[in-house]
Amino acid sequence: MAEDKLPTRAQDFSEWYNQLVLKAQLADYAPVRGCMIVRPYGWALWENIQSALDRRFKATGHQNVAFPLLIPKSFIEKEKHHVEGFSPELAVVTIGGGEILAEPLVVRPTSETIIGHMWSKWIQSYRDLPVLMNQWNSVVRWELRTKLFLRTLEFYWQEGHTAHATREEAVEETKQMLDVYTDFAVNDAAIPVIPGAKSDAEKFAGADVTYSIEALMGDGKALQSGTSHFLGQNFAQAFDVKYLDQNGQLQHCWTTSWGLSTRFIGAIIMVHGDDQGLVMPPKLAPTQVVIVPIFKTDEEKASVLQTAKELKAQLVKANLRVALDEREGFSPGWKFNDWEMRGVPVRVELGPKDVAKQAAMLARRDKPGREGKFSASLADLPATIEKLLAEIHQSLFDKALAFRRANTHETLRYDDFKKAVETGFAFAFWCGSGDCEASIKEETRATMRCIPLDPDAVLGHSSASGSGACVYCGKPAAHRAIFARAY
Amino acid sequence: MAEDKLPTRAQDFSEWYNQLVLKAQLADYAPVRGCMIVRPYGWALWENIQSALDRRFKATGHQNVAFPLLIPKSFIEKEKHHVEGFSPELAVVTIGGGEILAEPLVVRPTSETIIGHMWSKWIQSYRDLPVLMNQWNSVVRWELRTKLFLRTLEFYWQEGHTAHATREEAVEETKQMLDVYTDFAVNDAAIPVIPGAKSDAEKFAGADVTYSIEALMGDGKALQSGTSHFLGQNFAQAFDVKYLDQNGQLQHCWTTSWGLSTRFIGAIIMVHGDDQGLVMPPKLAPTQVVIVPIFKTDEEKASVLQTAKELKAQLVKANLRVALDEREGFSPGWKFNDWEMRGVPVRVELGPKDVAKQAAMLARRDKPGREGKFSASLADLPATIEKLLAEIHQSLFDKALAFRRANTHETLRYDDFKKAVETGFAFAFWCGSGDCEASIKEETRATMRCIPLDPDAVLGHSSASGSGACVYCGKPAAHRAIFARAY
Repeated sequence: MAEDKLPTRAQDFSEWYNQLVLKAQLADYAPVRGCMIVRPYGWALWENIQSALDRRFKATGHQNVAFPLLIPKSFIEKEKHHVEGFSPELAVVTIGGGEILAEPLVVRPTSETIIGHMWSKWIQSYRDLPVLMNQWNSVVRWELRTKLFLRTLEFYWQEGHTAHATREEAVEETKQMLDVYTDFAVNDAAIPVIPGAKSDAEKFAGADVTYSIEALMGDGKALQSGTSHFLGQNFAQAFDVKYLDQNGQLQHCWTTSWGLSTRFIGAIIMVHGDDQGLVMPPKLAPTQVVIVPIFKTDEEKASVLQTAKELKAQLVKANLRVALDEREGFSPGWKFNDWEMRGVPVRVELGPKDVAKQAAMLARRDKPGREGKFSASLADLPATIEKLLAEIHQSLFDKALAFRRANTHETLRYDDFKKAVETGFAFAFWCGSGDCEASIKEETRATMRCIPLDPDAVLGHSSASGSGACVYCGKPAAHRAIFARAY
Repeated sequence: MAEDKLPTRAQDFSEWYNQLVLKAQLADYAPVRGCMIVRPYGWALWENIQSALDRRFKATGHQNVAFPLLIPKSFIEKEKHHVEGFSPELAVVTIGGGEILAEPLVVRPTSETIIGHMWSKWIQSYRDLPVLMNQWNSVVRWELRTKLFLRTLEFYWQEGHTAHATREEAVEETKQMLDVYTDFAVNDAAIPVIPGAKSDAEKFAGADVTYSIEALMGDGKALQSGTSHFLGQNFAQAFDVKYLDQNGQLQHCWTTSWGLSTRFIGAIIMVHGDDQGLVMPPKLAPTQVVIVPIFKTDEEKASVLQTAKELKAQLVKANLRVALDEREGFSPGWKFNDWEMRGVPVRVELGPKDVAKQAAMLARRDKPGREGKFSASLADLPATIEKLLAEIHQSLFDKALAFRRANTHETLRYDDFKKAVETGFAFAFWCGSGDCEASIKEETRATMRCIPLDPDAVLGHSSASGSGACVYCGKPAAHRAIFARAY
């Protein structure tokens, strides 16, 4: 509840996060180590994320499906990089219906293998391609160090899986879905992200190329917020996914997969949140507007509540997500703090004087205090609030982008690089060698986040030159890469 | 594909069902025994079911949440009837991250136990009540005899869970959710159902009372299509879920749970389907309208396809779910059969003559042949089709209700009872004894489906008398019950 003060982000960012997730009732710890319960407020946020993404998936021709939770253990072993990557993280069912199973089953850590198996039955000819599928589910990976939303044994996500006749088409799909994630992050979550390619060390186990969107959190660490994998023919070969082409030749398919998970809720918290609590991006906020009635006498109460209810109905009709806080026994000030902590974008304060002049006081969550408050006429309130929500969205995005740019440093020297990753992104030439990458990680705890697809967008201006010397070894480097400490 | 003929329902109902599910690509068998893959057409139907129910859950004040998949095995053992019922069906994870787990975890068969555990932490006072939660997920029960949608090891469902301060409130909630299921079945799925109470032998493991909605399938068997459980204080006691009442006394909560699963898709198939294939109820149909263009020359093709595209856009704008079948290399007749098999409620045939007179030929799936065909003006088509879909819904419901009533027999003598359960429901006096119930099951394979809450609605008229003699033992019986062979 609102009376227990959060630590400030400057005091202890990690504790601020942990306590805020619990206090805002987004999630709680489950009785099984590393698992979480997503509570109503957190799940409502996830439902809004789901619907924003699902709309985009369907608009790009994808269909939802459901593949089973349980996968024969032998399937995981068919693709050699996949088994190396996932074996240490598996939860294994060995008993079913009271009997020891002849073949153990794994709880899916991801579904490439079982989908590959089924595609080998369903796909016969070029006419069956492309296959464009997505599923919303949960997966289990036996992580040792966990944190609510950011890394949990079981997490919720969507996993898209597609099969194509040609390499080009699969590469295009991989990039299209990365664009979809970027568009969602920017336009729905107000989070600026850097789309780019991962290194071999950081790519998905079984992918030829992994792309990701990377975001900068309020403490200067990176969060990989969505990934899109070009899987080449690796899984198609392992699972014998073939089609007859137009010349009657049997060919292996080219496949992709892509996912965005409840981790993204962590990004929303850590990009927008402040010392008062959550700051929800308006398009995803479970509650966009809260009406807090203010009164002293019973007579005032009757009049204010009646107007408040009418106002709520009016806003709901305009398709806004609205709460009216009628809780008894709490002061308006306590309620203000409580809704601030929950990050509701717009507060409407309604007292007897407001009712008398048919107006209300609006307060913006993103601009606490006087600065974000103004009186508005009740008659135009739906339109005023819609406009305000759009402004808040833009203002959150601008602020996050300015923060990221202020904390991204083009570093040519390793000393500067080491300083940069203390507080944000280092944007540095890298020769592409896994040895340099490993040494950097060892010495600075920073990892290669991605090679940006659009290097000029990172800082909003064209970088000094297209190539340079690797910040670690000094050898020629074709690209600048983003390095950071990461969640 | 449409060229392989289904067996007729009269020939082999079970094979008709199995082949139709595969042929319409609703689902397929997974590599793990008893598991299924829900394919795009099946999942689109489930998404429509989800949205129809979710809307009702939210309108009655419920919030969605997500509790974990993995539950400590010891939790299942805390409620004595629950453990008896579910122990034989558990899938058990014994290995995680390469290590043998100190305590095995079960893959949830249902979530009363873990929810009870968390409620004991979250619920403190009467102010925290009622708690009204729901989750959409999958659960695993190790069934031996499986059939796609009707009984699978993993199935998809929603499980609602609520906690209340009083017995009365919990009973009311249990019945309210039964009403929600009934309303959904009737008004969205066009399936008449009989809401009623289960016997002790058939109730949920851990419930005081289980209510269900029972539907009659096309082969005369019953399908339990949704259940709502009054759990008394059983789980509240097992998990110590208590609240301080207004007098400062600690009280155990009263709880409920209720669920509807992908079984319901089986009901839709077996209630409405015919020898040509699926018949989708219009409100849930993934595709409500299919436009089949008809042409011979290239010139005709250009003109017909252009009109077809405009028509599709017009129908989509009216919020209809529309497909335009542009597949090359298939005749219109082949396409008609294919869409009939998939159960699309309305087919629009559009040829050059139709275009010339700005009309189209409409065909109703529920009335095959000439009877269901008529020409309609393109200008009014959205309105015409909306009206037609409403008519089809009503007609499907009426037909299913007439079939149920024709196959429900009020049987006073056991000989008649035995004949009745060969082809449908026996509606018979039952003394309430578990022994009679067991003997009936042994001798006729029929089980007590439910004691209808509204006995007069079963046959649409008031039954002869309120009480009578048990159809099995002849002792006094207070109620008539529905008996049937069941899925």
